[in-house]
Amino acid sequence: MSRRPLGRKEWDVRASTLAQNTHNTIRSIVENLRVEPNPQKDLIALSIGDPTTFGNLNPPDQVLAAVRESVESHASRGYAPAKGQQEARQAVAEYSAHQGEVTADDVVLASGTSHAIELAITALADPGQNILVPRPGFMIYQTLAVGLGIRIKYYSLLPDEQWKVDIDDLENQIDDDTAAIIVINPSNPCGSVYDKQHLCEIVDVASRNHVPIIADEIYEHFVFSGHKFHAISSLSEDVPVLTCSGLTKRFLVPGWRMGWVIVHDRHNIFGKDIRNGLNNLASRILGPSALVQRALPSILKYTPQSFFDEVILFIESQAKLAYEELRRAPGLRPIMPQGAMYMMIGIKMALFPSIKNEFQFVECLVKEQSVFCLPGKCFEYPNYMRIVLTVPEAYLREACQRIIIFCKEHIDYGEKRKEVANDDITVPHNIEVL
Amino acid sequence: MSRRPLGRKEWDVRASTLAQNTHNTIRSIVENLRVEPNPQKDLIALSIGDPTTFGNLNPPDQVLAAVRESVESHASRGYAPAKGQQEARQAVAEYSAHQGEVTADDVVLASGTSHAIELAITALADPGQNILVPRPGFMIYQTLAVGLGIRIKYYSLLPDEQWKVDIDDLENQIDDDTAAIIVINPSNPCGSVYDKQHLCEIVDVASRNHVPIIADEIYEHFVFSGHKFHAISSLSEDVPVLTCSGLTKRFLVPGWRMGWVIVHDRHNIFGKDIRNGLNNLASRILGPSALVQRALPSILKYTPQSFFDEVILFIESQAKLAYEELRRAPGLRPIMPQGAMYMMIGIKMALFPSIKNEFQFVECLVKEQSVFCLPGKCFEYPNYMRIVLTVPEAYLREACQRIIIFCKEHIDYGEKRKEVANDDITVPHNIEVL
Repeated sequence: MSRRPLGRKEWDVRASTLAQNTHNTIRSIVENLRVEPNPQKDLIALSIGDPTTFGNLNPPDQVLAAVRESVESHASRGYAPAKGQQEARQAVAEYSAHQGEVTADDVVLASGTSHAIELAITALADPGQNILVPRPGFMIYQTLAVGLGIRIKYYSLLPDEQWKVDIDDLENQIDDDTAAIIVINPSNPCGSVYDKQHLCEIVDVASRNHVPIIADEIYEHFVFSGHKFHAISSLSEDVPVLTCSGLTKRFLVPGWRMGWVIVHDRHNIFGKDIRNGLNNLASRILGPSALVQRALPSILKYTPQSFFDEVILFIESQAKLAYEELRRAPGLRPIMPQGAMYMMIGIKMALFPSIKNEFQFVECLVKEQSVFCLPGKCFEYPNYMRIVLTVPEAYLREACQRIIIFCKEHIDYGEKRKEVANDDITVPHNIEVL
Repeated sequence: MSRRPLGRKEWDVRASTLAQNTHNTIRSIVENLRVEPNPQKDLIALSIGDPTTFGNLNPPDQVLAAVRESVESHASRGYAPAKGQQEARQAVAEYSAHQGEVTADDVVLASGTSHAIELAITALADPGQNILVPRPGFMIYQTLAVGLGIRIKYYSLLPDEQWKVDIDDLENQIDDDTAAIIVINPSNPCGSVYDKQHLCEIVDVASRNHVPIIADEIYEHFVFSGHKFHAISSLSEDVPVLTCSGLTKRFLVPGWRMGWVIVHDRHNIFGKDIRNGLNNLASRILGPSALVQRALPSILKYTPQSFFDEVILFIESQAKLAYEELRRAPGLRPIMPQGAMYMMIGIKMALFPSIKNEFQFVECLVKEQSVFCLPGKCFEYPNYMRIVLTVPEAYLREACQRIIIFCKEHIDYGEKRKEVANDDITVPHNIEVL
């Protein structure tokens, strides 16, 4: 045993680049928040995009019944094919007919929509390439891409045009290394819902630059009255689209981890290459729990439309409540959403001279009023915060009152009084300047 | 809209390197097998390492009861922390006390043991580095590593010494770029179970070369009478170990996708770096279904020892049956396993001159006898095939009879008669030469 060791001379174990560079911004902030809430007031968390947190929203019994049945079924115990069980993929295809023609072969099941997005990004993008991501936008793309050396480039959304895409900016961001454009519709965190014409403008950019689209449509059908959801794939002629969705939000079971990618490729631009690539990637961890796969056909078939309608009606009324309340908060500028389950609120930081930035604003709000909103930092968008609309009505109302009190206590018009009217919410302005 | 496009001039979308270079060898072979079985005989698949395939092995009611309860529980619906629910990690820590001191903080839950292994490999290894993998060995390491540019180097197992590690070869494979040694015990595909002394020899190699160990112990406690399972982490002083396991095999629910990584780091060599890295990686797709996480404490606590004992007793009797039968098959050399649920069978290819290699042997066996065994190719080990021992006894008996018939029909001693005795199963020899 006296042979010279061939390996290292001493211990020196370091985390890989991938491990070091993988960061889930929202989780880091939420799980590591150090600020203590005000002990005099119960904490109201408006931060977590989990509609089940407060127990006021529950999946319908059809969904639970399907899983109860699945537990008893032998077919829910064994390995499923890497892409998912045939029946489950067939059910997703039928459920997704609004996206265009979809067959079971076009569907790859995933362990939650995060995994679906991971499959889509890693199928298309190599290290050194880039993907275009909306700003503000949900940060899972960064979490999944950056560690692998896939770069993120942002294109701007326009807060004064209901968060529409700045089409020129989008097109300007495209370069030879752009592997995909991510489109989130309805949007997290903005709650915007794009109309057909605007989606076609986005598709046109992708088409004339020959860049595929990854459509994050986990909030599909989450639209308030007067708006309509269009799957971007249904409006694309040539542009191939990978659409990511799942049970998470619409069926109120985010913890079940059931998502999917659907391949839309009318002009056969992806060809077999991308489909094989997705299959290969799916074989790494073999997809979602078969317990849920087995239940999927019944879940998708038997959940009544009335359940979805009630949930949306509730969220819409919450959005109106929060909007009407918070437009009265001095120094804030809520932007009324058109769908999804969030609202973005601009913070006129110049009117809060004792508070450094929106991150500190959110921290002080926890410390003093025990209300936790996500800072814009979580979406690469300073001077804003995001609230979640799925909390019980009484909580939302109370939270809004506390936010108003907080704003009144900290607002300081000072010299800015003449410059910034407190009720300028409908006037376009550059929030960055404030 | 007449501006010059900034992106590509025409469509040219290709799958990423990761997608192209990710291959699940076994799944590819099993899912794409083109050979038709003999229509006169029912197919007996001895190929799939899924103990639930035939319905003869089922999880105990305690396991199902735990999930039934979970379905009704609100806590099974929301997002779990990236590492997994605290109660679930605590339960895994208690269940894994045989590995050494384990706390909930040492546990990271994963979407199946494949995902656990992905977390372990990608936490430790960078592109360009290598991991050492046993040959023959289960191929998930290749599937997970190669696409990321992490190289695989093989160390040899010794078929004539019950598949012990060739310690010199292991040490010779280590170089400056070796990020981890993978140890599979009990072994898939070999069914070997290492004794304490041999495990200490492996740990010693890791220790004097300062290389961490990834222990794949998904078959922990799967040992036949007369053998004892030792967790390699329990025998390590300084070498840090990431142990991967899960519910998959022992609780007969591979489709539920519940696995975990446990960090063993007595001398604080990993430090916070690797733990943080694992947490970061876990935040990519947020782990296993909360339906199963919520059930995990009850599953691990209430499943009776008698259930495990019965399953092992069954597999051991199957191993004996297959061994006794197949040692009578001319040209084959079964190696009696000591645990897990597989048996490797050497094929003396020189005695089957009409058959090119073990892959064709397995194909012909399907075509003529409707028995499907996995070719050694699936484990980077030619001239062998692997059978699964968990099929119903009558199937296994019938399959063995058919294999014997097949061998008798194809064997051709010819010139080799004198060289290769048909019953040389106990004599050490180099199967490669045959």
